[in-house]
Amino acid sequence: MSKHKIITISRQYGSGGREIGKKLAEELNIPFYDYKLISLAAKESGYSEELFTNVESKKTTNSLLFSLSSAANARGIFGKSLDDELFAIQTEIVRKVASEGSCVIVGRCADYLLQEDFDTIDVFIYADSESKVRNIMERKKLSEKEAAELVLLTDKRRAAYYNYYTDRKWGRVENYDIAINNSSGDADLAVQIIKSMVEHKWRD
Amino acid sequence: MSKHKIITISRQYGSGGREIGKKLAEELNIPFYDYKLISLAAKESGYSEELFTNVESKKTTNSLLFSLSSAANARGIFGKSLDDELFAIQTEIVRKVASEGSCVIVGRCADYLLQEDFDTIDVFIYADSESKVRNIMERKKLSEKEAAELVLLTDKRRAAYYNYYTDRKWGRVENYDIAINNSSGDADLAVQIIKSMVEHKWRD
Repeated sequence: MSKHKIITISRQYGSGGREIGKKLAEELNIPFYDYKLISLAAKESGYSEELFTNVESKKTTNSLLFSLSSAANARGIFGKSLDDELFAIQTEIVRKVASEGSCVIVGRCADYLLQEDFDTIDVFIYADSESKVRNIMERKKLSEKEAAELVLLTDKRRAAYYNYYTDRKWGRVENYDIAINNSSGDADLAVQIIKSMVEHKWRD
Repeated sequence: MSKHKIITISRQYGSGGREIGKKLAEELNIPFYDYKLISLAAKESGYSEELFTNVESKKTTNSLLFSLSSAANARGIFGKSLDDELFAIQTEIVRKVASEGSCVIVGRCADYLLQEDFDTIDVFIYADSESKVRNIMERKKLSEKEAAELVLLTDKRRAAYYNYYTDRKWGRVENYDIAINNSSGDADLAVQIIKSMVEHKWRD
């Protein structure tokens, strides 16, 4: 196991998990990777950034070939659907950034992808529906009804994506070291809690 | 809402949740209630302590009458099975101790019973199977096989009990403010995390 401090953050849509990850990375003074930055890293590695557009937003249940192979073997990119190729590229990039040094990674099934070879703290951030809808109304300038639909749909897609590419169920406590209800929207409390876990795990 | 600091702890069998609750109560200098102490409180209130023996260990799926009423109305004790009467008594006692002052309550569906009238921090403590089995082998002087069976059976019963008497599913993150993986067995870290939540929630 490497001595890098790797914190993966899985999060419900509208729960504020990305903000918590970003603040945590700032406070720990380590790089922060979300979808956009993983795509950028892929581009720097020679893959087209555009390949990644909306890969996680699509349902990925139509690849018979992939479903016959295991997600753990998804690193080769031949004989698979476009979605599966993209997942394989993302897998490589997530492993690459983790092997380069300490970092915070939001989403990308990183908790699953790094479980074998990296020592990680895996966090799940969630919130009650009311709070998520309120956040998305504000962030996306949507009506309550539109925001509620988007919250439901996005989390359904995230769960489908994760459940398809891993042998786990998204949001179940057993995947994580800690699950924090961020309904209060107080990112600082969550950051403080995760920091205390980081300090405890990687104390010398 | 009362200003009492009420912390409810739900826990998988062998996860060390009871120990965390006890330490937390000591550090906060507030009373700690587990099954035994709730039974004692019931006795002091005039109920027979023996009534409570093993109530949570039995499957409680045979009361048609109860399943037709709602758990929220389970405070009357007429026309219900013995299990349901015991649950109703426990409900009263859990509410009584919470209304008396700050406390830590382990188990007893307290997270559910107090949700309407009390301001609580609801915690779920879990651990991986290996760690739970190891703890129970040691605590109960059992073989690995016996301990593994007991862990599985006890959590099945806890889930059945909770799911029967509430409209929730035991162990799902949405019931709790935080869920902590205690596989490392480091009660102090969990206590520290919960304390930081307590200080944050009830800061003046």
